[in-house]
Amino acid sequence: MVIAYDGTRYSGWQIQPNSQSIQGTIEQALSTLLKSPTRIIGAGRTDAGVHAQGQVAHFSTQSTFKPDQLLYALNGMLPADIRIKNLHATLDTFHAQISALSKEYHYHLWLEKIIDPFVSRYRLHFCYSHFSLTLLQEAAQAFIGTHDFATFANVGSKVTTTVRTIQRITIVPQEGGVRLEFQGNGFLYKMVRNIVGTLLEVALGKKIGQQIPTMLAAHDRKVAGPAASPKGLFLMKIDYPECFANSSSNERKCENGLGIPSEIF
Amino acid sequence: MVIAYDGTRYSGWQIQPNSQSIQGTIEQALSTLLKSPTRIIGAGRTDAGVHAQGQVAHFSTQSTFKPDQLLYALNGMLPADIRIKNLHATLDTFHAQISALSKEYHYHLWLEKIIDPFVSRYRLHFCYSHFSLTLLQEAAQAFIGTHDFATFANVGSKVTTTVRTIQRITIVPQEGGVRLEFQGNGFLYKMVRNIVGTLLEVALGKKIGQQIPTMLAAHDRKVAGPAASPKGLFLMKIDYPECFANSSSNERKCENGLGIPSEIF
Repeated sequence: MVIAYDGTRYSGWQIQPNSQSIQGTIEQALSTLLKSPTRIIGAGRTDAGVHAQGQVAHFSTQSTFKPDQLLYALNGMLPADIRIKNLHATLDTFHAQISALSKEYHYHLWLEKIIDPFVSRYRLHFCYSHFSLTLLQEAAQAFIGTHDFATFANVGSKVTTTVRTIQRITIVPQEGGVRLEFQGNGFLYKMVRNIVGTLLEVALGKKIGQQIPTMLAAHDRKVAGPAASPKGLFLMKIDYPECFANSSSNERKCENGLGIPSEIF
Repeated sequence: MVIAYDGTRYSGWQIQPNSQSIQGTIEQALSTLLKSPTRIIGAGRTDAGVHAQGQVAHFSTQSTFKPDQLLYALNGMLPADIRIKNLHATLDTFHAQISALSKEYHYHLWLEKIIDPFVSRYRLHFCYSHFSLTLLQEAAQAFIGTHDFATFANVGSKVTTTVRTIQRITIVPQEGGVRLEFQGNGFLYKMVRNIVGTLLEVALGKKIGQQIPTMLAAHDRKVAGPAASPKGLFLMKIDYPECFANSSSNERKCENGLGIPSEIF
C-alpha cells in the first residue's frame, strides 16, 4: 500500500509503547478489518513530525477481501490525517524496505517574513536577512554521488554500511521559499535532516560549503550542523522494480527474483 | 490589517462568551501590546470553521508603535494558525466593513475518492459517481447579477435589505476537484454556503438548476438546499477604494469621502 500522512500528531512511523505511531494506527485498523493481528512493514521509518505522500508498506494476509474493498474500508476507519492512497496484491518476494530501488524526500523552507498559516505545519520557517540561497545551492552539490555519510547519520537502527548514493539534489522555487528534493538509493537515520541543517548553516555563513568533503571524510556526527526540524520533511516517493507493479503479466519475471537489489538499506 | 487564519479550531470570527474566536484572540494580543483594551472591527463575520486568506479589520489607537513593529510583535504573540499578513495606518474615515467595495470567497471541493490528508481540513470531500460538474456549472450562472437572496440567507445579523449583487462565479479546476470563486458587493449570513449546498444538490440531480430563479423569487430559506460545510470556505480578498491604500498622497481624496459606498452590508 501507498500511504500519505500528516505526521504532526504522531510519534513517527514505528510502533513504540505508550505513543501513537503511524504504523500502530494502521495496524490496528487493518487487524480489526482482517479479524487477525496483522503486522505491516514500512519502507522507511519516518521520525516524529515527518510527513509522507508516498510511504510504502506491505503485509501478508489470508483474507478474501478484494484490494479495493480493503482500501475503502481502511480509509473509513483511519483518522483523516492518514490516507491509504493505493493498495494492491503483489508477489510474496516483495518487501517494502528491501525491494526499494530509490527514495525521494522533499524538504520545504519558508524564507519570507510571514508564513502562510495553512502551511506552517509543513514548512520550516527560516527567515534571516543574511540568508544566501546561492551558498546553499553550491554547497548542496557536494553531497551528490556515493559517499560514506556517517557524519550525517544519527545512531539509530543498525546498518551494515553508512555508504549511500545521492543521485539528485534539486532546489525548486515555490510559494514562500524553496523545496530541496533529495533522491537516493537509501538514507541513513536523520540523514536528510542533518544535511539540510548543515546547508542552512552554510546559507547563514556559519559553516563553509567547501568544507563539506572534509566533514564527510571525518565520519564524525559532531562536525556537521544540527538536524533541521522534522516539520519540513516529506517522504515523497519510493521506486521499486517494474516487476512488482500491479500486473499479473509481469509476475513471471518477479518470480525469477529479477530486480531485487542487494541489501543496501 | 489583512489577516489569514485556519478557522478549524475557532468558533468563528466574532467574539462570543466561553468560546475561542479569531477576533477575541487578536484583540487579546493587541490589547496586551498596546497596553490598552482595543476593539477590532472585521469586514465580515466568518462562521465557525471558515478560513480566511484576506480578512480585513481596523482599530483605533493612540500608540506610538510603528506599523511594522506592531505587525511583527503581533505575529510573535498570536498562535501559528492566525497570521497578520499586513498592517498599515489609514484615515479615520476607513471602516473595514462599511468601506468595502466587494468581497471574494472561494469554496473548495475534493471530488476524487481519496482525499489528500494535507488538505482535508480545507476541502469538502464530495465524491459521488453521479456527480455532474456540467449541471453545477450551468446552475451557478443563475446566481450571477443583482437578486434578492433572502432564500439563501440564514437569519443572523440584522440587515436592511437582502438584495445583493454577485459579479462573478467562476469554477476553476484544481488538484482533486474544483474551487468555486464568488465575487460580490456583499454576502448575507451563510449565503455562500447555502448557494454551494444548493449547487451540490443540483449536481446530484436532487434539485433542478432551472428552478433557481423560482427559488430566489420564493424568499423562503426552506426551498433551497442545506448549507455546505464551513471547512471548504475561504474569505479570500476584500476590495476597498484606492484612496485607503497605504499612500499619503491619496489622503486628500479620502478626506473628501470619495469612494465610500452607501451602506450595503
